[in-house]
Amino acid sequence: MDTVRVFCPATIANISCGFDVLGLCLDAVGDEMIIKKVDRPGVVITKITGQDLPLETEKNVAGVAALAMLNALKSDAGFEIEIHKGIKAGSGIGSSAASAAGAVFGINKLLNEPFTKAELVAFAAEGEKIASGVAHADNVAPALLGGFTLVRSCDPLDVIAIPVPDELMAVVIHPQIEVRTEDSRAVLKENIPLKKAIVQWGNVGALVAALYSNDYELLSRSLHDEIVEPHRSILIPGFDKLKKAALKAGALGCGISGSGPSIFALTKGETNAKEVASAMKNAYADFDIQHDIHISKINTKGTVVI
Amino acid sequence: MDTVRVFCPATIANISCGFDVLGLCLDAVGDEMIIKKVDRPGVVITKITGQDLPLETEKNVAGVAALAMLNALKSDAGFEIEIHKGIKAGSGIGSSAASAAGAVFGINKLLNEPFTKAELVAFAAEGEKIASGVAHADNVAPALLGGFTLVRSCDPLDVIAIPVPDELMAVVIHPQIEVRTEDSRAVLKENIPLKKAIVQWGNVGALVAALYSNDYELLSRSLHDEIVEPHRSILIPGFDKLKKAALKAGALGCGISGSGPSIFALTKGETNAKEVASAMKNAYADFDIQHDIHISKINTKGTVVI
Repeated sequence: MDTVRVFCPATIANISCGFDVLGLCLDAVGDEMIIKKVDRPGVVITKITGQDLPLETEKNVAGVAALAMLNALKSDAGFEIEIHKGIKAGSGIGSSAASAAGAVFGINKLLNEPFTKAELVAFAAEGEKIASGVAHADNVAPALLGGFTLVRSCDPLDVIAIPVPDELMAVVIHPQIEVRTEDSRAVLKENIPLKKAIVQWGNVGALVAALYSNDYELLSRSLHDEIVEPHRSILIPGFDKLKKAALKAGALGCGISGSGPSIFALTKGETNAKEVASAMKNAYADFDIQHDIHISKINTKGTVVI
Repeated sequence: MDTVRVFCPATIANISCGFDVLGLCLDAVGDEMIIKKVDRPGVVITKITGQDLPLETEKNVAGVAALAMLNALKSDAGFEIEIHKGIKAGSGIGSSAASAAGAVFGINKLLNEPFTKAELVAFAAEGEKIASGVAHADNVAPALLGGFTLVRSCDPLDVIAIPVPDELMAVVIHPQIEVRTEDSRAVLKENIPLKKAIVQWGNVGALVAALYSNDYELLSRSLHDEIVEPHRSILIPGFDKLKKAALKAGALGCGISGSGPSIFALTKGETNAKEVASAMKNAYADFDIQHDIHISKINTKGTVVI
């Protein structure tokens, strides 16, 4: 095997109370990548379709992640990478993470898997560094491993895969506006009230318990964010209206995907997912903002060969 | 049945990262209470042994909790309560919670269980109000329900019972010094850095995941407290030395029980629990402070009839 074609899924990070630690993997949206082993050492991005992104290896998250992995192996193998973006850059559903995950996953396959999927997370996170300045793993972990993931610690990296209730579905609406990373960071407070932090970690513990025990009601009660959402949501026009519509239509919870502008809702079952998607679409009709809506199962496999 | 004799166990609240939300129930330490149904309406505390505590119903946590429950039932039943304290007041292992839990549990039995154990938590928490000023449930929940409990929310009360790995044990050392509640509150900061809060809620999520998945190593990695322990531990002479000794002897983690002065360590298995207890005892030998040491299984039953 000297060529592999992989599907690299979109992901939702910062799931309500789980800011910076909880992520989940989507099924319905993702990129495709074709990775070829070649004689010339190094990594070359030969083609990118669907989005306007840099081809230079050192400026591309897939290139940087691939190089981090090859450096760790002290390998002089060579690879050519084609990236076909299904995920829009800047949408808040892990576009750069998907590329980073796909690159290390594909190359690992072509090298006969020197690393486990869990071990690949660290290399993919290196790729994230050039997208966001930080080697964060809250999108690359679910992109690689699938399901829900908890990043307990970034340094050393400690990622926990958490089970997913069977009927859990996600709805994602992507308003096509730009939220600048600087802005989404600037609105965060450096210090937060201890009282609110306690509420948040009570909810994180409850959310994890709900996932292990298939308790959709508890999941719903725990999907709150007292810390970040109140500040970041002001950067997303119509957030409050969309959230209200989603919850009224029966969503278990609703929040900002990553640092936005996408907004996610979680639901029990596909029927409710469709109702929630429709309610969110209707609520957004008044806003003159182009948007996509995705309805997705939770992807429990993560990045895979197709 | 007009008399019931109950065992009301000691508990550990504020388990490391789980400040104000996570508690667990001990097996080896507790109170006994004898509750008798009588003709005269109301609640009378007839006897307290083992500790010097108020007999007046309205000043005693057991009395207040019992009245809260009878008021909710609009009941004019009457009860006499004897309390035999095995738990030292002010030790930080839920002395007042045990009395509150025992009172409502026993009366509920004598009334043919109008409430579930979970429903009793709110009444017992009312009793806690006179001990600490707040109707907190992080000791009464594990005292009643047993095992590990997560208090997701106090208002409305939302308590989640979390499974306990079979071999988990607790060691508790109680240095017989007084930590004044005012002092243990005064050292807490009203605001905390967001970065530390994220670490904390990552650990809470991981701790819950570890309990569901019987992952002792993950449990150990998550038993950290970045927020409260650094401040409160200065009120407990020898804390750092004891913690170091416990961890060196193989404890999974070690922290302050409740708001102290007791210090707990968690271990895998009884053999290690004994080693950890011995190491803590040796480490405390230099300190001229009287202390008790308890080695206990995690009590999965909570308050029971004996």
